[in-house]
Amino acid sequence: MLLHLCTWLEVETYLTQSQGIILPIGSTEQHGPTGLIGTDAICAEVIAKGVGETTRALVAPTINVGMALHHTAFPGSMSLRPSTLILLIQDYVTYLAQAGFTKFFFINGHGGNMATLKAAFVETYAALAHLNVPNADRIQCKLANWFMCGSVYQLAKDLYGNQEGSHATPSEVALTQYVYPEFIKHVPLEPPVAPAGRPIYGAIDFRRAYPDGRMGSNPALATPEHGKQLYEAAVKELSTAYLEFLNKD
Amino acid sequence: MLLHLCTWLEVETYLTQSQGIILPIGSTEQHGPTGLIGTDAICAEVIAKGVGETTRALVAPTINVGMALHHTAFPGSMSLRPSTLILLIQDYVTYLAQAGFTKFFFINGHGGNMATLKAAFVETYAALAHLNVPNADRIQCKLANWFMCGSVYQLAKDLYGNQEGSHATPSEVALTQYVYPEFIKHVPLEPPVAPAGRPIYGAIDFRRAYPDGRMGSNPALATPEHGKQLYEAAVKELSTAYLEFLNKD
Amino acid sequence: MLLHLCTWLEVETYLTQSQGIILPIGSTEQHGPTGLIGTDAICAEVIAKGVGETTRALVAPTINVGMALHHTAFPGSMSLRPSTLILLIQDYVTYLAQAGFTKFFFINGHGGNMATLKAAFVETYAALAHLNVPNADRIQCKLANWFMCGSVYQLAKDLYGNQEGSHATPSEVALTQYVYPEFIKHVPLEPPVAPAGRPIYGAIDFRRAYPDGRMGSNPALATPEHGKQLYEAAVKELSTAYLEFLNKD
Amino acid sequence: MLLHLCTWLEVETYLTQSQGIILPIGSTEQHGPTGLIGTDAICAEVIAKGVGETTRALVAPTINVGMALHHTAFPGSMSLRPSTLILLIQDYVTYLAQAGFTKFFFINGHGGNMATLKAAFVETYAALAHLNVPNADRIQCKLANWFMCGSVYQLAKDLYGNQEGSHATPSEVALTQYVYPEFIKHVPLEPPVAPAGRPIYGAIDFRRAYPDGRMGSNPALATPEHGKQLYEAAVKELSTAYLEFLNKD
Amino acid sequence: MLLHLCTWLEVETYLTQSQGIILPIGSTEQHGPTGLIGTDAICAEVIAKGVGETTRALVAPTINVGMALHHTAFPGSMSLRPSTLILLIQDYVTYLAQAGFTKFFFINGHGGNMATLKAAFVETYAALAHLNVPNADRIQCKLANWFMCGSVYQLAKDLYGNQEGSHATPSEVALTQYVYPEFIKHVPLEPPVAPAGRPIYGAIDFRRAYPDGRMGSNPALATPEHGKQLYEAAVKELSTAYLEFLNKD
Amino acid sequence: MLLHLCTWLEVETYLTQSQGIILPIGSTEQHGPTGLIGTDAICAEVIAKGVGETTRALVAPTINVGMALHHTAFPGSMSLRPSTLILLIQDYVTYLAQAGFTKFFFINGHGGNMATLKAAFVETYAALAHLNVPNADRIQCKLANWFMCGSVYQLAKDLYGNQEGSHATPSEVALTQYVYPEFIKHVPLEPPVAPAGRPIYGAIDFRRAYPDGRMGSNPALATPEHGKQLYEAAVKELSTAYLEFLNKD
Repeated sequence: MLLHLCTWLEVETYLTQSQGIILPIGSTEQHGPTGLIGTDAICAEVIAKGVGETTRALVAPTINVGMALHHTAFPGSMSLRPSTLILLIQDYVTYLAQAGFTKFFFINGHGGNMATLKAAFVETYAALAHLNVPNADRIQCKLANWFMCGSVYQLAKDLYGNQEGSHATPSEVALTQYVYPEFIKHVPLEPPVAPAGRPIYGAIDFRRAYPDGRMGSNPALATPEHGKQLYEAAVKELSTAYLEFLNKD
Repeated sequence: MLLHLCTWLEVETYLTQSQGIILPIGSTEQHGPTGLIGTDAICAEVIAKGVGETTRALVAPTINVGMALHHTAFPGSMSLRPSTLILLIQDYVTYLAQAGFTKFFFINGHGGNMATLKAAFVETYAALAHLNVPNADRIQCKLANWFMCGSVYQLAKDLYGNQEGSHATPSEVALTQYVYPEFIKHVPLEPPVAPAGRPIYGAIDFRRAYPDGRMGSNPALATPEHGKQLYEAAVKELSTAYLEFLNKD
Repeated sequence: MLLHLCTWLEVETYLTQSQGIILPIGSTEQHGPTGLIGTDAICAEVIAKGVGETTRALVAPTINVGMALHHTAFPGSMSLRPSTLILLIQDYVTYLAQAGFTKFFFINGHGGNMATLKAAFVETYAALAHLNVPNADRIQCKLANWFMCGSVYQLAKDLYGNQEGSHATPSEVALTQYVYPEFIKHVPLEPPVAPAGRPIYGAIDFRRAYPDGRMGSNPALATPEHGKQLYEAAVKELSTAYLEFLNKD
Repeated sequence: MLLHLCTWLEVETYLTQSQGIILPIGSTEQHGPTGLIGTDAICAEVIAKGVGETTRALVAPTINVGMALHHTAFPGSMSLRPSTLILLIQDYVTYLAQAGFTKFFFINGHGGNMATLKAAFVETYAALAHLNVPNADRIQCKLANWFMCGSVYQLAKDLYGNQEGSHATPSEVALTQYVYPEFIKHVPLEPPVAPAGRPIYGAIDFRRAYPDGRMGSNPALATPEHGKQLYEAAVKELSTAYLEFLNKD
Repeated sequence: MLLHLCTWLEVETYLTQSQGIILPIGSTEQHGPTGLIGTDAICAEVIAKGVGETTRALVAPTINVGMALHHTAFPGSMSLRPSTLILLIQDYVTYLAQAGFTKFFFINGHGGNMATLKAAFVETYAALAHLNVPNADRIQCKLANWFMCGSVYQLAKDLYGNQEGSHATPSEVALTQYVYPEFIKHVPLEPPVAPAGRPIYGAIDFRRAYPDGRMGSNPALATPEHGKQLYEAAVKELSTAYLEFLNKD
Repeated sequence: MLLHLCTWLEVETYLTQSQGIILPIGSTEQHGPTGLIGTDAICAEVIAKGVGETTRALVAPTINVGMALHHTAFPGSMSLRPSTLILLIQDYVTYLAQAGFTKFFFINGHGGNMATLKAAFVETYAALAHLNVPNADRIQCKLANWFMCGSVYQLAKDLYGNQEGSHATPSEVALTQYVYPEFIKHVPLEPPVAPAGRPIYGAIDFRRAYPDGRMGSNPALATPEHGKQLYEAAVKELSTAYLEFLNKD
C-alpha cells in the first residue's frame, strides 16, 4: 500500500491494525559516468514497494534528496545539509506519530544518509518527549540499508568480487537497470575499476580524489538480471526485518 | 529529461545549453474521503514531466511532502513546518546554483505551499548573495501553480461550476484518476458538495470546520477523461510559461 | 486603545471583555524618490489606530521593519529575513496567547510581508499546539492588507487609474502626506510613470529593473486630501472586518 | 532626522557625510499598576529623537518589543526570546551595513535587553566577517542605556532617593508623563514602595516575588516636570556620547 | 563531589538531599604573551572544585570553550557563537532539570561569557515552561563570576593597583601559576602595562587595538603565592554565595 | 602539548610546523552502578594526552558533554541534542581553521557521538566552503574511536570474552580505574552480565530495557592493570593513526 494512493479513511482503518510505516529514503547525486543520478532513490523506492507488498505495510513517499554534500562538486547532485535533513525527519515522524504511527522503518539507499538519520532519530525521540504526542516513549525508528543486507552483500561479492567498490557500485547500477532497462548508459570507464581508499571530506576534495565520481567500483559489470536477483534478495530480507521490528515490543 | 534518470555527464552537457530546471512540488495530505493522499504530488509530478518533455527541460525529483500542517488532524497527512520547507528549498537551490543553474521553475500542486515557497525564494536570494555561488544575482525562482493556469481554471469552471470548491476538488481528483485509473475510490459523499468559506487556521480547527476534509467541492463529478483534458491544458500553458521565464533576462 | 498606553491592569480588564488584538505591521524600505522610507509602517499604524478607536480594540505596537529583502539595494531600507520574521510573529502571538488573547488581526501595509506572515501563522499554530497555552486550538491570526480593501482599491483606481502601480503608489504616498503633510517631498520623477511588469527576484536584480525604486506608479499624483479619503475608506472597511473576525467562532 | 520620514535619496546623501545611525530599543511589558506598558519604548524613542535632532543623526524606527520574558506572567506584556532578538539585531545591522553604515548606536530603555543586545553584537560581528559587506571589520555597535547616564542617575537619586527602585521606577514613569501627560494613571499603590532584592528567574517566579509588577519603586512620586528634566539630562549626555562614538576610530 | 567521578546511583542519592549543582564555565582564548590559553577554564574549574568540597555540592564538568569571538584573531583561541552557547546551556539545564536539579550555580571565569549566559538563562526558563519538566517554575540559574567577588577584587587592587587591567590580568595569571607552577611563561612584555580603554567590537578590531592581547594589565606582577590567596578568597566567598542561593526559596 | 597550557605565541609557532590538532570528545552519562559518569570523557582525554605527547601534537580541551540523550532517564546524565553538537563542532573547527589549522583529529570515547560527529563534519565542510577561511577545501576532520582500535578490541576480547558488552564495559571501566584508582566503586551487579541485544530508541525506552544502565557487560572484571594495558594499546595505535592522517594529502 502506497500512502500516496490511499485516502485518509483507508489510513484510519490501517491504523486500527498496524502502527508501522515504511519510509524509503535515497539521494539525488552523481553515480559515476554511467550511474543514474537517482540511483539511491530508485533503489530505495522499488525495494520499499516490494517490502510493502510482501508485508501489507503502508509505504510513505520517497525522500528523494538526502545528505550528499560530498557529491555536490558534480553537476546534477542535490543535497540537504544534515541540519535540514534532521528537521525534515523530525517533521515526518512527528505528524505521523500524532496520527498514531509508532514504528518507522526507513529503507535507505545511500550510505551518506546513515549518520544524519541516526542523529535525526535521537533528536526526534527527545523532541517528541516534550510534545503532546500519544505514546511518545513507544516511538521507534529503524534504519534498514538495503545494500547492507547479508544476502545482498553476499550476492554482490559473488557477482563482482573486489570490483563492487563503495560508490556507483555494479550492484546498485544493476538494480536501476532492472527497474529502468531503457535507461542503461554506455560510457567507457577509465580505469575500469575506480580508485579507492581515500576517506571522504568536503565536496571539492572528493572530486579531486575521485575524478569521475566512482569509488573503487566497476559498474560496467552490472546487468538487469543481476538487478532482479539483488532486488529479490533485498525485498525478502527486509520484509523479514520489518515484521520483526513491528512485532517486537 | 528527468534528473533522476540522467548521469552527471549528461547534466554537465545540458548546462552548456540551458540553465533552467523544473522542480515539481506537491503535498502528502488528506483529500477528502475519495481523494488520494498524494493528489498534489501526483498532479505536480505528471505535469512537470509533461512540461519537461515539451520544452526539453530537466525535471528534478518531486518534493512529495510540502506545507500541510492544517491537514494534520487527518491520519496519513504529512507536513513540513514552513521553517523546514524554507531550509529545504534553500538547500535545493543552493547546490544546483553552485553547479550553474540559474532558472528554477517550481510547478506546484498545493495552495498551502504558496506562501512558504515565496518566503523561501526571498530567503534564498538573500543567502545566495553572501555565498560563493556563480551569478548569485541572476538566480531566479518562479512559482507556477498548475491549478491557477487560466486554461485550467476555465476548464474546471466549465466542467464543475460552483462544485469545484477549493480542496479535494473534482479537477485535481480527475487528474489523479487519469494518471491512476486503477485507484479511483468510491465512497458516498455527504453532503455531495462540502461546506465552504471558513478561513483556515490550525489543524484541529480545520477538521472541526471541514469534517470529511473537503472544502466546497464535489469530487464525485471527476472522471479520468476530464483529467486528461486538465492535464493537457496545464502542460500546454506551463510549457509556454517556462519558456518565457527561461528566455527573459 | 493603544497597548503601549495601557497598564497591565487595564489589559487584564480588557481581556474579560474581548480576546482580540490588532497588530499593525509595515516595513522600512525605499518608496521611490519621493516616498517616505516608513510609508508602509506609517500607513499600517495610523489605520490600525483608527480601527482600534472605531471598534474599541486594543492595538499592539507597530512592527516597523518587515520583509523587504528585495529593497535592500537601496540605502535606508531595512529588512528581516523571512525566517526571522516567522520567529518574531511566533513570539508575539505566543506570549499574548498565554495571557488569553485568541484573535490576532494583523493590519498590514506591505505586500512583501504577506507570504511570510501566512507562513508564520501556520508555523505558530503548529507550535502552539505543543505548548502549555490556553485555547491553543482556538487561536486565529488574520491578515488584513489595507491596500487590498475593496473600497481603497476602487478609490485608488478612480483617483489614479493605471498610474497607481504597485510600489511607491500614489495612494500610499497620499496617505503618508495626510499623516505628515510637513514631510511631502518634491523630486522630479523621470519617467513620470515608472516601469512595471518585471517579477521580483533578489535585491540587486530589483534595482536593475526598477532603478529609482518605483514600480509602475506615478506618486506625483498624490495629495493629502486623497490620503484622507483613503484613510477613511480603509478604517471603515477594516473596522467591519475586524468585528466580523472577532465575532465568528 | 527620522529614517521613516526620509527618502532613500536623502539617506544616500546622508551616507556621504556620516555612517552613524541611532536605533532606539524599548520593550512592551508591564510597569506596575500605574506605569504604561510601552514605557521603555516611549522613553527610548523620545530620547533617540532628541539625540538625533541635537546631533543631526539619522534615527531608525524603534524596536518596540524587546526581551521581557520575565514579565510575561502579566497580561499585555510581549517579548522576543533572546535567540529571536539576536537574529533581529543581526538583520537590522546587516542590511544597514550593506548600505554603508558602520556606527550603530542603540539607545536602550530596558535593562532586560542589555545582555541579549551584547550577545547580538558579537554574533553580528562574527557573521559579518563572513558576508560580502563593505568594511565588515569596522562595524561597531554601542549600547547606550539612557537610565544609566550619570546625570540621569544622579537626578533620579536626588528626586526619589531609595524609592527609585529598579522596575516601574518613578524616573521612567515621569518621563512617560512628560511625553503623554494625558495618560497619567492613578491607582493606589500598596505598599507604596514595592519589595526589592529578589533576583530574577522565570516569569511565574517573577510574579510570585513582585505581585504588582514593581521592583523596589514608588512611581507615585513621578511628575511630568521631573520627566522633562530627566529627558533633557539624557538627551544632553547621550548626544555627547554619540558624537564621541562617531568620531572615534 | 565531581559529577564525572560519581555513579548515577550516587547522584540519585545526592538528589534526595540537594537539588543544587555547580557548573564551571571558562574560555579557551589568548591571554597575552604569557597567559595560558586555558586561563579562564582553569580558574573556573579549580575554584568550582574548591567550592564543591567546601559545600559538599556536586560539580559538573567544565565548559571549556565559551564566548570568545573577539579573541579569535589570535591563534589558539576557540569560541562558540552566542547562539550556540545559548543552546548548549539550554541542553545542560534541561536534562539535569529533568532528573530533579533546580539550582544551577555557574562559576564563571570569563567576562565575555556574562551577557550570553544571562540571555541563555532566560531563554531556558521560557523553554522549560513548555516542556514536561518537574518544577519548571522553580528552576533557577545563578551567574557567579569569581573575578568579581568583593574579596578577590580588593585583593587584586591591593596587589596590583592600576596594573590589574581587564584581560590577561595578573590576578588570573597568578591563579593559573598556583595551579600549574610548571607552566609559568616568561616573555618580555612591551609595554609593561598594556593599553586600555578601547571598547570591544569584532575580532580584527580587537587585535588592532590590543596587539599582544592584553588589556590594561601587567601580568608580570603575578606570582603563584598571589594565586593561592586569590583562590582561597574566591572559594570562601563563592561557597557562602552558593549556600545562600541553595537555601533561598 | 595541551592547548590550555600554551600561550597564543606558542600556538603561532606550532602552526608554522604543523596544522594538526587533536580534539578529545567524551560524554557525561551513566555507566551502570559502578562506572563513573565521566567515563567516556576521562578515557578520551587521557588517551588524547598520551597521543599528543607521543606525536608532539597540540591537544584541545575535552568536549565533556556529548550526545547521550538515550541515557537521560538516569540521573546525572547530561547531553547535547545532535543539532546543538553539530553547531558546537562547527564553531570549534571554524575558528581553529581561521587560524590555520586544517587537520582535526577527534579522539572519541562514546559510541553515541559517532553519528552526530559524522553529520557535523559534513555540515562543517559545507559551511566552510562559503566562509572566508584559508584552505577551506583542505580541511579534514577524522573520527578516531579509541574503543574501536584493533589492538584494544583484541585485548578486551582476550580479557573479558563475551562479558565485554557494549555499554559500561569492563574495558572502559578498567581504563578509568587506571586513571582514578581512588574512585573504584564497589556495588553488587545483578545479574553479573547485563542484558543485551535490544536496539536503542528513546531515553525512557532505554531504561526499561536496561534497568541498571549496563548493556551486555560485566564491569566487575575490570582492574586498573587492565586499564594500563588498554591505555597503552590505544595510545600506540592512535598515535600511528594521527601521524598517518597528518601526513596524507
